[in-house]
Amino acid sequence: MADIQGTSNERECLMAQIKVQGDRVRKLKEEKAAKEQILEEVEKLKALKLELGDESGSTGKLILKTPKGTRDYQPEQMAIRESVLNKVIKVFKKHGGVTIDTPVFELKDVLTGKYGEDSKLIYDLKDQGGEILSLRYDLTVPFARYVAMNKTSTIKRYQVAKVYRRDNPSMSRGRYREFYQCDFDVAGQFDPMIPDAECIKIVQDILTSMDIGNFVIKVNHRQILDGIFEVCGVAKDMFRTICSSVDKLDKSPWEEVKREMIEEKNLDPVAADAIGEFVRMNGGMELVDKLESTSLSESSTAKNGLDSMRLLLKYCALMGCPQSVSFDLSLARGLDYYTGVIFEAVLMAEVRDEKGELIQVGSVAGGGRYDKLVGMFDSKNRDVPCVGVSIGIERLFSIMEANLANTKVRTSETEVYVATAQKNLCEERLKLCRELWDSDVKTEHSYKKNPKLLSQLQECEISGIPLAVVIGESELQKGVVKLRTVATREETEVLRSSLVHSIKEKLNELKASQ
Amino acid sequence: MADIQGTSNERECLMAQIKVQGDRVRKLKEEKAAKEQILEEVEKLKALKLELGDESGSTGKLILKTPKGTRDYQPEQMAIRESVLNKVIKVFKKHGGVTIDTPVFELKDVLTGKYGEDSKLIYDLKDQGGEILSLRYDLTVPFARYVAMNKTSTIKRYQVAKVYRRDNPSMSRGRYREFYQCDFDVAGQFDPMIPDAECIKIVQDILTSMDIGNFVIKVNHRQILDGIFEVCGVAKDMFRTICSSVDKLDKSPWEEVKREMIEEKNLDPVAADAIGEFVRMNGGMELVDKLESTSLSESSTAKNGLDSMRLLLKYCALMGCPQSVSFDLSLARGLDYYTGVIFEAVLMAEVRDEKGELIQVGSVAGGGRYDKLVGMFDSKNRDVPCVGVSIGIERLFSIMEANLANTKVRTSETEVYVATAQKNLCEERLKLCRELWDSDVKTEHSYKKNPKLLSQLQECEISGIPLAVVIGESELQKGVVKLRTVATREETEVLRSSLVHSIKEKLNELKASQ
Repeated sequence: MADIQGTSNERECLMAQIKVQGDRVRKLKEEKAAKEQILEEVEKLKALKLELGDESGSTGKLILKTPKGTRDYQPEQMAIRESVLNKVIKVFKKHGGVTIDTPVFELKDVLTGKYGEDSKLIYDLKDQGGEILSLRYDLTVPFARYVAMNKTSTIKRYQVAKVYRRDNPSMSRGRYREFYQCDFDVAGQFDPMIPDAECIKIVQDILTSMDIGNFVIKVNHRQILDGIFEVCGVAKDMFRTICSSVDKLDKSPWEEVKREMIEEKNLDPVAADAIGEFVRMNGGMELVDKLESTSLSESSTAKNGLDSMRLLLKYCALMGCPQSVSFDLSLARGLDYYTGVIFEAVLMAEVRDEKGELIQVGSVAGGGRYDKLVGMFDSKNRDVPCVGVSIGIERLFSIMEANLANTKVRTSETEVYVATAQKNLCEERLKLCRELWDSDVKTEHSYKKNPKLLSQLQECEISGIPLAVVIGESELQKGVVKLRTVATREETEVLRSSLVHSIKEKLNELKASQ
Repeated sequence: MADIQGTSNERECLMAQIKVQGDRVRKLKEEKAAKEQILEEVEKLKALKLELGDESGSTGKLILKTPKGTRDYQPEQMAIRESVLNKVIKVFKKHGGVTIDTPVFELKDVLTGKYGEDSKLIYDLKDQGGEILSLRYDLTVPFARYVAMNKTSTIKRYQVAKVYRRDNPSMSRGRYREFYQCDFDVAGQFDPMIPDAECIKIVQDILTSMDIGNFVIKVNHRQILDGIFEVCGVAKDMFRTICSSVDKLDKSPWEEVKREMIEEKNLDPVAADAIGEFVRMNGGMELVDKLESTSLSESSTAKNGLDSMRLLLKYCALMGCPQSVSFDLSLARGLDYYTGVIFEAVLMAEVRDEKGELIQVGSVAGGGRYDKLVGMFDSKNRDVPCVGVSIGIERLFSIMEANLANTKVRTSETEVYVATAQKNLCEERLKLCRELWDSDVKTEHSYKKNPKLLSQLQECEISGIPLAVVIGESELQKGVVKLRTVATREETEVLRSSLVHSIKEKLNELKASQ
């Protein structure tokens, strides 16, 4: 669109484009094309119309928006985001995590073949000569690339960064095309289930620290799922696709998933029914016992998975998260790279937004073991077993925002506002600000030369700044200034020469009384 | 390249591609094409050859690298980066900044026409249907878009985020295609030079807090530059291009810049000489006085600029940064959007890396006033005057890394390592870890079931973990554990039941003695 702007027959050109685009959309609808494709083309059409419209087209202005599925964070949101991220990072650090950073884009080949059906959601960069790049889709694949490239044998790392998915955004449900992930992963050859259990403990610690009500951490094991498919008579090359059907059980009823298995994937209805018996079970250690006495134990794969599950549940209990962990056979997780334990944390609480509407939160963390991913990047196929968890921090932001909807959130940390009571005190004000800044006092002042006292004091009250220093002619002559406690509007005269000391004293006093 | 992998005649296909690409490079060289273009094509050729090579091609493995001009940050680098960023953010907060975040990409049109000749360095996303997007090139243009879109009238915001430029990377000089910027900007209608001077104070505060030696903050004013061009007889429509020649004075001698003006831009040699007289001047308030008595004062534009400079220098002096500020007529800054004060901080110190080689650091911060940028995004052309500064944090990272090259940097914050002295104590260990985590003690342990005591204690010493708890059979029976101070290897028995208390006491003791 950029090259259209500025041409003399801009409007005609746009109208022609709208005609062509409109025809394209109609054709797609007639052809009953994929819904997503139609939506994309409709969006292009809307963009063209917007550009033509009076609001923007006539002044040659841009469409003023952020890209589809993205948003700006306002200062209030940032303050909340910071506090949520700090809580998450605190837990990661409590468990000994170090942090790394990787580029926002990778060679496209690094991402290829890692995400199954979801690969279509990857953002590609334009080929501008040079390498073919894509925006990262998650933090796990770049981490595996990092481990292989650096020939790392063990690392316990966390990473907080944005990832990109060309998904259908749903802002109201906190689903964006650009969003944060907070990952903790353990790479290295260790004894079974110890790091796996610690990942679950980390999820529990984080969700507990958020104080957002009840949650369940569902756990399952790829080998148990594979064993189920095996004993139910699914052909081996159908495991992955049947698994991705099972993955839909959190959103669809069993009847629908069954229909998909039989009608779309040609599974024998008897096999589907047998799978259905298993995947609707959940429980604790007693479920492991029960399953060992079923046909499932005939599969050595399932047997291995059940042994692992027994150990995992034992370690989880020792680490103090028995109530929240549920062994759930319906948990499948779509990603191709998982090889062992998989888990997902689901919020049970229902939170209401400011309009009184329910915020659907669903899954807030997920992860699992992926022992073969690093090997895919290593020239000698050297595997480094990994297990990790990803926190769905955007949903936690949404919940916190809803919780704090009626609370005033401070967006700056300013401690003192330096105000002037009369005109011509700008120079004195700057000198005083300098003194406070040089003493590490967080200080603001008006950017007007001769601001009104009232508007300066109002600014303090609006921004929640705890203290104000008021400079006045007569006070200056006496060698004093006024120190005002904003909340109580109480003022005392303090010596200009010991102002920094008085301010620090007062700040400590206010902090202590909170 | 992705679609090549997995095909049966992969090798043949690659060889054909290499042939085609080799021909392309030879042709470009014969045609004496632009050096950059040739380099890009050579790089593609190299990538193809690498893929074919034994190391990767034969196993079907990927080229294991990060995209050109980007890098991973290792845990040690992240620890340094965190401490540098914290210092910068602390200063931003000290001056009352709030923070926002914007998406990593913008509608391409948002960036169009803002960067002059540098627009070719913008990364575009592939058109995958939907909007046409580009990665952000700086944080200033997205900020202006934000201010216009949110109809913000005043804001003092900082933002720390990565930006993207398809520049020729020079890793050794700390120049990357993906790099951090730390920006502080003040938007709003205020009195002249007050926020401008505070931006300079912020640069001074940040560079002082880094403790990296001497620096100069060069200041100039677009109106003074325009006035110079005016009185030297440059045609008005040539101002921008002559200004971008002047901008090269930090890297090229005057003679070369003059040659460019005359030969490439057809400037009258007399005009060029007159410009040369001015742009080689620098100084303080006395230079403002001196210039007012030259031909420059005949230009009302220059006169305005000089008045502004006088006020700026005065405010800078009041805020306590007189020594480091230098009024420098050669400072031009390339970006199109500046309208008033411009400034740039340059490091004077020479730092050596571990090989004893000098690290060239050059400019570490820059900024200026841009009063018309927000209006470019507003449908009613409503202007919001802005001034801001961008800290070149990557260079500061490089310097800090060089300074700390021989120092051991801790990458985790772990306080206690829980070790076991014999076999079969894994369960006790997990219970004890749980207790410490639940008491907010940063705790690590081995992920092996029965690790050797020596290797556990070595791990503490390597990672710099201050305390170790050693669990042993006989101690457990007595209801005690050993608490070991890693640095001194001193061990004391403490009651298992009051372990958390003993640890916190010991940690405080160690902190106090540091």
